[in-house]
Amino acid sequence: MLQIYTGNGKGKTTASLGLATRFLGHNKKICIIQFMKKNIEYGEITFFENIPNIDIIQFGTPDFVDKKNPKKIDLEEAVKGFHKAKEVILSKKYDLIILDELNVALDFELISPEEVLPFIKEHKDDLELVITGRYAPAELLEIADLVTEMKEIKHYYQKDFSAREGTEY
Amino acid sequence: MLQIYTGNGKGKTTASLGLATRFLGHNKKICIIQFMKKNIEYGEITFFENIPNIDIIQFGTPDFVDKKNPKKIDLEEAVKGFHKAKEVILSKKYDLIILDELNVALDFELISPEEVLPFIKEHKDDLELVITGRYAPAELLEIADLVTEMKEIKHYYQKDFSAREGTEY
Repeated sequence: MLQIYTGNGKGKTTASLGLATRFLGHNKKICIIQFMKKNIEYGEITFFENIPNIDIIQFGTPDFVDKKNPKKIDLEEAVKGFHKAKEVILSKKYDLIILDELNVALDFELISPEEVLPFIKEHKDDLELVITGRYAPAELLEIADLVTEMKEIKHYYQKDFSAREGTEY
Repeated sequence: MLQIYTGNGKGKTTASLGLATRFLGHNKKICIIQFMKKNIEYGEITFFENIPNIDIIQFGTPDFVDKKNPKKIDLEEAVKGFHKAKEVILSKKYDLIILDELNVALDFELISPEEVLPFIKEHKDDLELVITGRYAPAELLEIADLVTEMKEIKHYYQKDFSAREGTEY
């Protein structure tokens, strides 16, 4: 079963983290692979670190990726991330696997859809698979079982543009 | 700061639960009050029960509420739930308070907007407040700082209509 959370609004990654808490409550095993994020002090990393039955692994760098001119390391990390995703999917050890921001990695062409789509299509019914991020490619939406668009209706005006602890990370 | 998650798509409650994990990772205190839900084996209840720094309290009954003809107990539970919400907001003990499905309780007129709106408006800037549920009333959207609409784009056709463990509860 493939679920996709996309759109320009808040709540895509957090909806997947919330699903993880539900699965944990049912004694299931979860793996979260985060793309385009590394060494950033996300609250979920610190929190889930000490929780049994859930693994969370980041690929990327702490820097923003330039869509028009991604660095070699950005491509390498995304490819490594998807290799890890394949490995955990094939291991059949997990009930829920979340590929956080994979949509963006695809849209930025850090990984090729030819590598990702056939694999996802073949294995999505073996487990609960969640893919998040803006710009979900049409081919992925097509094979998904459930698609939710998070739509920004209203957004506070931040005086400074620093992210707020807890809410944004 | 008031955040609202509304719309007909999946991910409203789970986005709030995911926010809770982020806040937990930053060592903050969270209270979740769930309206129109009780004694249902939601995964988040079982999971968060054993986690320090987070309290989760349900008000309602296990039965569906009939919008046109709510039972006396539905009204009583919703009113009790909002009294509890006021108490926890005024206690200033929590950094994040989630009023899950309060939008629906308001839309179903289980609680009157006159009781809810002025209080929320007065206190929303003292903490991070999240309200979830379909049918968010316009007056609430107006005072919100952040509104995300979860829009259902695609939904699997379930052969039977039983909810799937972990994903739906």
